[in-house]
Amino acid sequence: MNGTSTVGIVGLGAMGLPMALRLAATPGVTVRGYDTAPARRRLAADGGVVAVESAAGAGDGAQLLILSVRDGVQAENALFGEAGAASALPAGAVVLLTSTIGADAARALGDRLAAAGLGLVDAPISGGPVRAGNGELLIVVGGAEHDVVAARSVLERLASTLTIVGPRVGDGQLVKVINQLLAGVHIAAAAEAVALAVGVGLDPALVVQTLSAGAASSFMLSDRGPRMVQALDGDPEVRSRVDIFVKDMALVARLAADAHIPAPVAAAAGQLYVIAERAGLGTSDDSTIVRMLAEGGQREQP
Amino acid sequence: MNGTSTVGIVGLGAMGLPMALRLAATPGVTVRGYDTAPARRRLAADGGVVAVESAAGAGDGAQLLILSVRDGVQAENALFGEAGAASALPAGAVVLLTSTIGADAARALGDRLAAAGLGLVDAPISGGPVRAGNGELLIVVGGAEHDVVAARSVLERLASTLTIVGPRVGDGQLVKVINQLLAGVHIAAAAEAVALAVGVGLDPALVVQTLSAGAASSFMLSDRGPRMVQALDGDPEVRSRVDIFVKDMALVARLAADAHIPAPVAAAAGQLYVIAERAGLGTSDDSTIVRMLAEGGQREQP
Repeated sequence: MNGTSTVGIVGLGAMGLPMALRLAATPGVTVRGYDTAPARRRLAADGGVVAVESAAGAGDGAQLLILSVRDGVQAENALFGEAGAASALPAGAVVLLTSTIGADAARALGDRLAAAGLGLVDAPISGGPVRAGNGELLIVVGGAEHDVVAARSVLERLASTLTIVGPRVGDGQLVKVINQLLAGVHIAAAAEAVALAVGVGLDPALVVQTLSAGAASSFMLSDRGPRMVQALDGDPEVRSRVDIFVKDMALVARLAADAHIPAPVAAAAGQLYVIAERAGLGTSDDSTIVRMLAEGGQREQP
Repeated sequence: MNGTSTVGIVGLGAMGLPMALRLAATPGVTVRGYDTAPARRRLAADGGVVAVESAAGAGDGAQLLILSVRDGVQAENALFGEAGAASALPAGAVVLLTSTIGADAARALGDRLAAAGLGLVDAPISGGPVRAGNGELLIVVGGAEHDVVAARSVLERLASTLTIVGPRVGDGQLVKVINQLLAGVHIAAAAEAVALAVGVGLDPALVVQTLSAGAASSFMLSDRGPRMVQALDGDPEVRSRVDIFVKDMALVARLAADAHIPAPVAAAAGQLYVIAERAGLGTSDDSTIVRMLAEGGQREQP
């Protein structure tokens, strides 16, 4: 990021806020941020972001507009809804889509933006809020080369692992959906492991720690496993919500069905998140899915 | 391992042979090894093991007898079948059970051995043949303290991570079964991810490499993922067989059922191994399960 540049961002949630704050702390960069929740705008303003009252306000004068929203509907609204950003962005500006919305939805947005003389870089992110604030995200990028070049300095400020997975808008989404397949299954497997440890009378914390060293290890077992042990007795801090995986495992199921690829394990994991949401855990930390497996009912030591 | 000691081993397969060779290379240790297959006995003899003609021969004069067999039936035969080791072992000897046979079966063996004045240490191993040969196994141990002490020097020669998970025979098996739940699910998830990458027109090797860096990472994605990409076009070397997971995921399902713990994701993964075995892949490398998901049938790019 050389010289002076203005970056807009719509969505100041768990991922958007730390990204906005990190960019706002970069010399020569002005960040204009919008979120529907006033409290999130205030948090952003406290960290040096110019808080604005609409998506259009975020796009005003921005060479690059980051979308960090929940899903495809919110992405479309942010760009083309009332007071949307698309009409406020200067000609030739590039939209950086960091949300996971699926390849079809990303391509549809790209087509509409292209018709308005605007670029789209499909750059879904992975890694959680702490990594977002430290510039340590995994970002998988799909997009036309000149758009990717325009977004590159911002991408490099946010990512520790940046992979251009293909030249098409949608390629980043495809890889991210596969990322979510693995992440969603690994969390569910960790929950089953922790619940089973409890069910057979073992110390679940010792089991998680022991198995994290070997062939059973996963990022999610090390990250969510200890929070699941906590979740058995209380409410862990919400770092990643159950309803994120309700959405993302539905994207996995749709992609697999469209491609005629069987994905029975992902399907089973996806159902766990839907069951958890239906049980009232939608806005809880995803580690709480362990409760549905470990709590209540008959339990005997084999 | 101080002074001179004799260690017997029954089962010179993918894991047993490298363990036997490693122990035979230890100064002051004599290893007596038996396998039903003459070819395996010859390989062991080439590496300095005293090859014998029966399980009883392996137990003859051994203070410690390692069992590295496929399942509970083989373990029982090795000890109590015709020319079994139990009657040949000196009084006070300890049997080190490295196989995954389930907690109930391990406890039953422990009871029969105790009645014969022999100890049992329940020490299932994880890590694969290469790690077995390098003394880098993960071993989870359950057993009475005096038996564990007797087996300790051999355990430390084989393991880089050694955890005493409980004082009861069966505790090691319980943790190992939970290990296999995670490992079996992670392999299945990696197969679905690789198949889906192929199905949507991405480069599966690039997807595996990219996702191994972040929140979707697992030991199995890094280890089996590249072999799955190979397995799409040829037969990878057999390092871990499909039928191992047919057996182990059945142990997972039984343990979860006995404990009244739901494990739908493990159940779905377990079915994949049974389907693969039924498709003729039982003795193939477990990475080949990707073929059932990626090959043949209708495929279209979404």
